[in-house]
Amino acid sequence: MANDAPTFEASSPSSALLNADLRNLARDLFDRFREMSFDGVGISRETYGLGETQAIEIIEKLGQDHGLETRWDAARNLIVRLEGRDPALPVVASGSHLDSVPQGGNFDGAAGVISSLLALLAANEKGQPLRSMELTVLRGEESAWYGGPCYFGSRAMFGLLTDSDLSSRHRVSGETLEHHMASCGVDLEPIKAARPLVTPDHFHCWIELHIEQGPVLIARQKPVGLVTGIRGNVRHRRVTCQGEAAHSGAVPRWLRHDAVLAMSELLMRIDEHWRILLEWGEDLVVTSGIVETNKDEHAVSRVPGEVTFALEYRSQDTKTLESFGNLIENECRQIGERRGVTFDLGEKVYTEPARMSENVVSMLRKAAETAGVPCEIMPSGAGHDSAIFANQGIPSAMVFVRNDKGSHNPHEAMEMEDFFAGAEVMARALSHAANDEGEIEA
Amino acid sequence: MANDAPTFEASSPSSALLNADLRNLARDLFDRFREMSFDGVGISRETYGLGETQAIEIIEKLGQDHGLETRWDAARNLIVRLEGRDPALPVVASGSHLDSVPQGGNFDGAAGVISSLLALLAANEKGQPLRSMELTVLRGEESAWYGGPCYFGSRAMFGLLTDSDLSSRHRVSGETLEHHMASCGVDLEPIKAARPLVTPDHFHCWIELHIEQGPVLIARQKPVGLVTGIRGNVRHRRVTCQGEAAHSGAVPRWLRHDAVLAMSELLMRIDEHWRILLEWGEDLVVTSGIVETNKDEHAVSRVPGEVTFALEYRSQDTKTLESFGNLIENECRQIGERRGVTFDLGEKVYTEPARMSENVVSMLRKAAETAGVPCEIMPSGAGHDSAIFANQGIPSAMVFVRNDKGSHNPHEAMEMEDFFAGAEVMARALSHAANDEGEIEA
Repeated sequence: MANDAPTFEASSPSSALLNADLRNLARDLFDRFREMSFDGVGISRETYGLGETQAIEIIEKLGQDHGLETRWDAARNLIVRLEGRDPALPVVASGSHLDSVPQGGNFDGAAGVISSLLALLAANEKGQPLRSMELTVLRGEESAWYGGPCYFGSRAMFGLLTDSDLSSRHRVSGETLEHHMASCGVDLEPIKAARPLVTPDHFHCWIELHIEQGPVLIARQKPVGLVTGIRGNVRHRRVTCQGEAAHSGAVPRWLRHDAVLAMSELLMRIDEHWRILLEWGEDLVVTSGIVETNKDEHAVSRVPGEVTFALEYRSQDTKTLESFGNLIENECRQIGERRGVTFDLGEKVYTEPARMSENVVSMLRKAAETAGVPCEIMPSGAGHDSAIFANQGIPSAMVFVRNDKGSHNPHEAMEMEDFFAGAEVMARALSHAANDEGEIEA
Repeated sequence: MANDAPTFEASSPSSALLNADLRNLARDLFDRFREMSFDGVGISRETYGLGETQAIEIIEKLGQDHGLETRWDAARNLIVRLEGRDPALPVVASGSHLDSVPQGGNFDGAAGVISSLLALLAANEKGQPLRSMELTVLRGEESAWYGGPCYFGSRAMFGLLTDSDLSSRHRVSGETLEHHMASCGVDLEPIKAARPLVTPDHFHCWIELHIEQGPVLIARQKPVGLVTGIRGNVRHRRVTCQGEAAHSGAVPRWLRHDAVLAMSELLMRIDEHWRILLEWGEDLVVTSGIVETNKDEHAVSRVPGEVTFALEYRSQDTKTLESFGNLIENECRQIGERRGVTFDLGEKVYTEPARMSENVVSMLRKAAETAGVPCEIMPSGAGHDSAIFANQGIPSAMVFVRNDKGSHNPHEAMEMEDFFAGAEVMARALSHAANDEGEIEA
C-alpha cells in the first residue's frame, strides 16, 4: 500500500534528522528482535518475562555504547537519558513497550522504542539539547498475558498498580503478576505501597510512536497519523434479553416475545443512533462482538426465549459515552415494553478516555509539515500507555504509523519507509521541545 | 383454564366409550412416562434414543398384556394391532410419537399414543371390529435433536428419508442419525434404499390426537380442536453471515463489515415483511431460534466477522412459502451489498403443507356432537407426522386438546378432563370407521 502513497521529504535522508546510519541501526534492531522472539508462528515476548527483559537489555547496551545514561526504575522500566544543558528542567520524554501478545507481530511496541532511541541518538549528534531527553522502555503493556489488566509498567511508575493487578494470574504459568515481577528483579515495596516512582512534573511532555492497529491510514493513503485522544470505553460483557420461549409454528405473531428479534431491533436502533451521532461530529464506535442464544433451550423450531450479547462503545469524549449509555437504556426500556421482553445490561466496566495535548499535537503537526510528511489527524481507538501519562496531567501525544492487517497477529505489515516518516516527525518534535524554553499545556 | 369451560357429556364416564379403568390406565401411563424421563428440569426423550425406546416398550408390553398383536417395523416404529373381522380391509389407524425436545413437556406426543391405545382397548372390549385397528408409535418426530430435519419415523415408513437426513448430526453426541438409528436396532437397508415399509393403501384412515401447541383453544374456551390443515415450513438451520473481524476500537464505522449488525438488519426487514403479509391475510410465522457468533474468534473488543443463525418460516400455503423465500434472498443480497458482507443460507429443508380429509374431520365432528364435546375447527400451526400421512393420500385428520403454556417446555398444562374429551371423540370416530364398510376420501 505504501507504494500508492504520495512521496514525501522524509524518505530523502539528505534533509532528514534520521540519517542513513540511524536507519540501518533501526532495521538491524527490528531484525534482532524478530530473531530472538520468534515462537514458530509470530513474536512472543511475555509481560514481565525473560524475552522482554532481553529485548530491553539490547536497548540498554545500545544506549550505553552511544554514551547515553541508562538506569532501571523499581518496576524495571528502563530509562535511557540524554542529559540536557539544564538538567533541572522537566524532561522531553518518549517511549513505548517491548512485550507482545502471544504469537503477535514485530512492530507493536517495538516501533515506539526504536524510534525514540533514534530520536535521542539524532539529537545527541546535533549537540547537547537544553532539556534532558529520556526514552522510557515500559514493561507489561499487553493485556493478553494476565487475562485483562494491562499497562503495568506505566501504572507502576505513577503508583497505580492495585492488589488485584498484582494477584492476576499468568495465562500459562498460573503464577501471579507479583511473582513474575519479582523474578524480573522488581522492587515490590514501593509498588505494593502504591508509591509513585516518578512525579508528573518530572516530564515536560510525552510522545509515543505506535503502529496503527486499524485501517484508517491505509484507507486515507497517509503514512502517519497524529492522535488527538485515546478513546475510553464502556463494556457490558453480557447483556441478557429475556423473552418467552414458544413453539415456532403454533404461537401467532401477536402472542410472541421473541428475544432475538428484540435484540436485533435494539442493535438496529443503536446502529442508527451511531450513524446520526457521527454526522453530528461525535466520536463513537459501537460493537456487539459476541451473540449467543441460550444453548440449553434454543432450537430451530422454537421462538427464542433468551439471548445474551456483548455491548461495547468507545469515544474520546466522556460526555458522549455517558449520553450514549442513557440512549441505550432508553431504547431497552421502549423495545422491552413494546415486545414484552426485558433487557438486563449486566455489569458495566468503564475505562476513561484520555485527551492528548493540543500543544504537543500542534508541535508534531509543524514537524510533519517541515518534514513533508502527510498526516491524518485521528483518534486512537485502542488503548495505550500514553493514556496513563495524559491522565497524570503530562502533555502527551501519539504518532501512528500506517500498518496493514491490524496488530496482535504475526501479519502486521508496517513499511519501513512509513516507520521512518513517523520517526522523523517525532524526532523533530522532540528535538524542538528539548530546545524550547516555553512551557507546554496538557 | 379448563374450569371455565362449559361442561360436556364426555366427562361423565357413564355414557363414555372410555371407562374408568381406561382412564386410570391413561393417568398411570402419563405418570410413568414423567418419572422415567424427568431430566431435572423437564422431560427428555431423545429422537432414536434410549428413553424413547423404553417408553415405546411400555406401550408394547401393555398391548401384549391386553391381547393385542405388536410388531416393530424396520424403522423401529411400533405397531399395536387389534385384528378386525376382515383383516384384508384397509386398517383404521392412529398414533403419535414418544420422543420429546430437550427439557420438554410430558404431553407432546405421549397424549396421542396413550389416547390411541385407549381407543384400541375400548374397541376390543366392545367386540371385534370389522376393520383392523392399528396404533402406530412413531419415532423421531422432533426436530430439536438433529438441528432441523424431523418426522424420521413416519417418513421412513413411506421411504422418504434422504441421505441428508441420515447424515444429520446429533446436537450432543455429534454422531449421525444413521448411527443412532443403528443403535436402536433399525434395519437401515430398506431405509437407505428409500423403500417404503408400508403402502398408503394399507390405511383406511389416519387420526392423530395431539395437545395444541398454541393458545387458540384456551382463548376460545373449548377443550378440543379439529384440524383442517397443517402448516408446511422451510428451514435453514444454519445461515452464515460473513463480514470481517476487526479491532473494535481502531476500525471506524465506514470501514466495518459487521456480521451481527447485518444479521440484525436482515431479521428486522423480515419482521417487517411478516407484519405486512399478515395484514394482507397471508398465513405465516417466522422464527430465528438459534444465533451464535463464531466462538473461535469472537470477543467483546472485536467487530464480529461471522455469525450463524437459524431461519424457519411456516405457512399453510405453498405459494406463500415460495414467495417469502424469494423475499429473503433479495434482502440478503441487498443488505450484503450495502454492508459488505455475504449471506449463505445453507441447506434448505422443505416440509410441504398438508390438507386434512374433510371426510375424516366430518366423522370426528359427528363423534364430538354425540359425545357432547365442544370443538373448534382450526388449522395446525405446528407440523405433525399426520402431514406425512396426508401427503401420501391417506385420509387423515387431527384432534387437538386444549393445553396451556405451549409445548416444547416443562410447563405444558393439559387438564386430564380435556384429554379424555379429545380421546373420547377420537375413540368414537375410530370405532365408527372400523365398523363402516364405506370408503373415505382423502
